[in-house]
Amino acid sequence: MEKLIHHSDLDRFVYNVFLSMGCTENHARQATKTLLDADLRGIDSHGVARLSGYIRLWEVNRINTQPNIQVIHETPSTAVVDGGSGLGLVVAPHAMSVAVDKAKSVGTGWVSVCNSNHFGIAASHAMIALEEDMIGMVMTNASALVAPTFSKERMLGTNPICVAVPAGEEPAFIADLATTTAANGKLEILQRKGADAPLGWMQDQEGHPIQDAHALKNGGALLPLGGDREHGSHKGYALGSIVDIFSGVLSGANFGPWVPPFPAYVPMPDNQPGKGIGHFFGAMRIDAFRTKEAFKRDMDLWIRRFRESVPIDQEQKVLIPGDPERACQAEREKNGIPIVDAVWTDLQSIAQKFSIKL
Amino acid sequence: MEKLIHHSDLDRFVYNVFLSMGCTENHARQATKTLLDADLRGIDSHGVARLSGYIRLWEVNRINTQPNIQVIHETPSTAVVDGGSGLGLVVAPHAMSVAVDKAKSVGTGWVSVCNSNHFGIAASHAMIALEEDMIGMVMTNASALVAPTFSKERMLGTNPICVAVPAGEEPAFIADLATTTAANGKLEILQRKGADAPLGWMQDQEGHPIQDAHALKNGGALLPLGGDREHGSHKGYALGSIVDIFSGVLSGANFGPWVPPFPAYVPMPDNQPGKGIGHFFGAMRIDAFRTKEAFKRDMDLWIRRFRESVPIDQEQKVLIPGDPERACQAEREKNGIPIVDAVWTDLQSIAQKFSIKL
Repeated sequence: MEKLIHHSDLDRFVYNVFLSMGCTENHARQATKTLLDADLRGIDSHGVARLSGYIRLWEVNRINTQPNIQVIHETPSTAVVDGGSGLGLVVAPHAMSVAVDKAKSVGTGWVSVCNSNHFGIAASHAMIALEEDMIGMVMTNASALVAPTFSKERMLGTNPICVAVPAGEEPAFIADLATTTAANGKLEILQRKGADAPLGWMQDQEGHPIQDAHALKNGGALLPLGGDREHGSHKGYALGSIVDIFSGVLSGANFGPWVPPFPAYVPMPDNQPGKGIGHFFGAMRIDAFRTKEAFKRDMDLWIRRFRESVPIDQEQKVLIPGDPERACQAEREKNGIPIVDAVWTDLQSIAQKFSIKL
Repeated sequence: MEKLIHHSDLDRFVYNVFLSMGCTENHARQATKTLLDADLRGIDSHGVARLSGYIRLWEVNRINTQPNIQVIHETPSTAVVDGGSGLGLVVAPHAMSVAVDKAKSVGTGWVSVCNSNHFGIAASHAMIALEEDMIGMVMTNASALVAPTFSKERMLGTNPICVAVPAGEEPAFIADLATTTAANGKLEILQRKGADAPLGWMQDQEGHPIQDAHALKNGGALLPLGGDREHGSHKGYALGSIVDIFSGVLSGANFGPWVPPFPAYVPMPDNQPGKGIGHFFGAMRIDAFRTKEAFKRDMDLWIRRFRESVPIDQEQKVLIPGDPERACQAEREKNGIPIVDAVWTDLQSIAQKFSIKL
């Protein structure tokens, strides 16, 4: 069962919750936008469903809602930002704006971030670059749920990579992908349905293939993109590792099995080598390479030619990365955002806790 | 059947072939090094086995061995390089050195290349950055062999991504991966054995799964990393697309189905929008983010911790990207490079053509 809620109603509620947590108006607005972007784009696992998780992290003092976000090292094209243990939802747009400013000045900007927390969906931050006619790149590490090829142990997060590329008349190319076979959100859908997962998504605690959608609770692990060695899981493992190194090792954040967990009740790993979780942001000015006109003309041609690829099935045309999320957003802006019962109950408790009308 | 040839003998032979094709000594040395790097690292499909292919492209005037390689657009952190239709084996190290120089000056350097040709293995170029305590990134597009999710048509090359990261006491992290389930070289091994490919590697000309290792000759296509929709092939498709856009659209090279084919007998696609094939190079100075000492200490910790992941099988420890190639290189430097009969015959004809002793 689910309710349909208009996004502006959800927006007002979430904004007031962040204000009540002590965020400035500006921060509350940014954090709300990132959460709502997820719900509008159909990434339900990363939207208001996570609001109570952020609140619990704030309650145990693992999130500071009045963070001192600062550049602690820089060159003309790079910076390391210390997120001051703030909401990733706020630290990320800040860091992206540092990358954009550097790109304005020297062509590209690259920012690695330490001492942050979960930042919502990567696409929300990468799209900031589009407004400036720049390519945006966003990565983040996350707590370990993924087993490298040959490993029984969970060592990496679902570590997404997002690249957003502006076009001319066509809508932007926006690829936002976990470096695993399937994102956690897809597992959650199966769990709610009581359905099994396909082989190739997970292994059990002994490293054997398993289809039980609840396997992560019993010490199982998600598998890197590729699924098994024969289908290139070592490539997904390598991609997740690159995200971990750029986000964690380059910034002085935690990495690998030391990345802080999202659930506030899970204890911090011992002997952490760094501070908080890490992100990585890039902005490349289009006209640092070619004129905007030439690039956009070719990008439109790229998009149109790929859309016109001969489809296997006439009923399912070839898509451009970002198409499904764009279609979802148009539909949800019109008809409302579906909120499942469990999330609605969650939001009601939050409303009660902060005496905010839902 | 195969012969074992000492790498210095192969090196001398290949160097003399490139000189005979009109390369300068410096270019001949660079091109030889890249080919030999492939053979030493065990990427046999990209080493001397391809020498005759480069020669045929030169014979039909699609490769200029005395290219005018020039920067045609730049900012402090970016450049577009026109490869002058040169050997990619020579254009690539040139472009990487431009990226490294920019990184020395402003922290990072990013170079997109048009009007080039096949550049061998990406790792050979990315590793140039390691010598300067920089992270190296290399991508290239290639002629279309890969079908996007839902497409019958081949639209992308195997479009590899390589990232090389320096460490301290540990050897460097070097991930070099085609954005497909399996690289072309692995198919060639199965073809020689007369063996079938696993499901998930290829589809036939109607878009149905096929295991025949010769399926590409009959209009089939390689599949993006992930293999099928359920296992995330849309992610492999997105990654291959990012490589195509960074290499082709950003530089003014060809992209998608218009990328020039490697075999000289295959006609050029009609209505090409750009020049030659495209590459993308990045160099990030470590100390543009943290002190080298802090980064290398953490990178060593990263590598050691991942090596120590609890393995599924005690006989197969968890590997770090670059480990298998490094082991292969040590073995082949000692015992020689195995050359299969077909390649040996090929090299003999080249020796005869240029009157060079093999």
